[in-house]
Amino acid sequence: MMVIADHPITAKAHTNIALVKYWGKLDNQLIIPQNDSLSLTLDEFYTQTTVQFLPELSADEVIFDNERLSESASKRVRTFLDHVRQLAGINFHARVITKNFVPTAAGLASSASGFAALAGAASRAAGLNLNRRDLSRLARRGSGSATRSIFGGFAAWQQGQDDATSYAYPIDEQPTWDIAVVALVLNAKQKKISSRVGMRLAVETSPFYSAWIKASQADFETVKTAIQNEDFELLGHTSEQNAMRMHALTLSSDPNFTYFNADSIQAMNMVKELRLQGISCYFTMDAGPNVKIICQGADAERIRCYFQSSFGQDQVLVTRSGTGISISN
Amino acid sequence: MMVIADHPITAKAHTNIALVKYWGKLDNQLIIPQNDSLSLTLDEFYTQTTVQFLPELSADEVIFDNERLSESASKRVRTFLDHVRQLAGINFHARVITKNFVPTAAGLASSASGFAALAGAASRAAGLNLNRRDLSRLARRGSGSATRSIFGGFAAWQQGQDDATSYAYPIDEQPTWDIAVVALVLNAKQKKISSRVGMRLAVETSPFYSAWIKASQADFETVKTAIQNEDFELLGHTSEQNAMRMHALTLSSDPNFTYFNADSIQAMNMVKELRLQGISCYFTMDAGPNVKIICQGADAERIRCYFQSSFGQDQVLVTRSGTGISISN
Repeated sequence: MMVIADHPITAKAHTNIALVKYWGKLDNQLIIPQNDSLSLTLDEFYTQTTVQFLPELSADEVIFDNERLSESASKRVRTFLDHVRQLAGINFHARVITKNFVPTAAGLASSASGFAALAGAASRAAGLNLNRRDLSRLARRGSGSATRSIFGGFAAWQQGQDDATSYAYPIDEQPTWDIAVVALVLNAKQKKISSRVGMRLAVETSPFYSAWIKASQADFETVKTAIQNEDFELLGHTSEQNAMRMHALTLSSDPNFTYFNADSIQAMNMVKELRLQGISCYFTMDAGPNVKIICQGADAERIRCYFQSSFGQDQVLVTRSGTGISISN
Repeated sequence: MMVIADHPITAKAHTNIALVKYWGKLDNQLIIPQNDSLSLTLDEFYTQTTVQFLPELSADEVIFDNERLSESASKRVRTFLDHVRQLAGINFHARVITKNFVPTAAGLASSASGFAALAGAASRAAGLNLNRRDLSRLARRGSGSATRSIFGGFAAWQQGQDDATSYAYPIDEQPTWDIAVVALVLNAKQKKISSRVGMRLAVETSPFYSAWIKASQADFETVKTAIQNEDFELLGHTSEQNAMRMHALTLSSDPNFTYFNADSIQAMNMVKELRLQGISCYFTMDAGPNVKIICQGADAERIRCYFQSSFGQDQVLVTRSGTGISISN
């Protein structure tokens, strides 16, 4: 018999950047992806979420960055809590207090850290004591990329074919090689086309979609090998190619769209310029204009300075490999 | 028996914008493309070229925009002249004077008008009296897109399978419906990756290439139907989608690259903004940052003003359907 926690439970989860992207669902309800994906969890960007189920509440309360969310704005969280309640066999409502240490909805994947932290805090608050695989499966119901944020370092999300088999697993949780990410926060405004809508468009309308899936599976194996061999060039090059092919899907969707803005174009050109100068670094982008530069730790400071000459100081952030989820008792 | 002309021959050919793009060769020597393409010849942008074969010349002389080209810079023209000499059975060298009324190598397809004009002037100067189909075949040897600049209005380049069967033909040389193009000259600097290199990269490295060919053939049929029915929306939408899928090929090539610059991104967003305001217009881009807006003549002035508020006056050019090649006697 499970017993709900008699005190608030707090979980902290870091966001991740996908080196091999998730861009399309096979099952929209269960969030089963179209391909395996692979990411690096980042130290600097995270979400901290506190949950308590309370008999006196008549509805879920969601406080996000110190503001109470409206019913419509909290819908995704409440749907997720419904799922947790169902798993735990309880019907109390919850108070959720969440704080994002990530620029929201600007392609720094705040939904990844957000739903990972929510899965961790809500499940334990509901009396469930899930192992990391099951936490990953639960996080998946909130946001696909959240599966990978349960783990630190390099993590893979295996596609699977159903709720039981689609989850993330660690590849190298504490990489000992010198890997870092310089994140350029180019536009923290809300994006126009969510990743949810963007990937649905790609699946339904891009003539390149099936070729993308095939290429991504090959990239997945290549990046796994690169991690095993600590081969930075192979990891960086494959990741950059994979990202640009994902963005080629947005251009080839109907209607076409792009997450690039003027600054993204400039930043990508600057990365290519750095490579010509002999500095090994590669870019990746997600469902927003931000550019993340994968580099070796030894070069991170030099790269940061190079970008600070063109962008603002608070727009250039250096981060390293982060740890997996932590949950208070 | 053919006799070479005893006076200079001048030809004028207009450039064209592809509505269904040519992006990849099946045969690099003969320039046989991977798919059928379709274009609109433009009134404002053209090349005028004068050719005379002269017994006293010891080498070909190529004067381009009032400057004598070096041996290396004139190589492509001289190779083309070799082909003309071979066809005509002559061995005199030629004086070529060419003037471009097109921003060179900035994606306004100056090689299309350039090699169409050269094919017209050089063949007649050499004593050949080619019909337009054979002129189109000849122009193809200089630059694939030049095949279509032999004709006015809407022209198609049928892929064919060899030198005899790969040529352009007119679809509607004098469209009576109200079609116009607003061209944004965003960067007249030489482009970094030529279309020649760019399309070779796509054919050899993009995992999306075969799906592109299939989609383009479908677009070709759709745009042909749209021209027949004077269906502007269908023509515009299909052209824009086709262009973005071509640009998706550059992103998905290895190494990835893009012809977009910051201004291109802004201009494309502005076209989408105009559509939201109810003005029907669509964009296309080629191997450079310029954006060309396909619109109805009645809207051209309004669109020109809209873009002049963000770009310079000399950067926004309005043009209509142009005529086919003309050659002096």
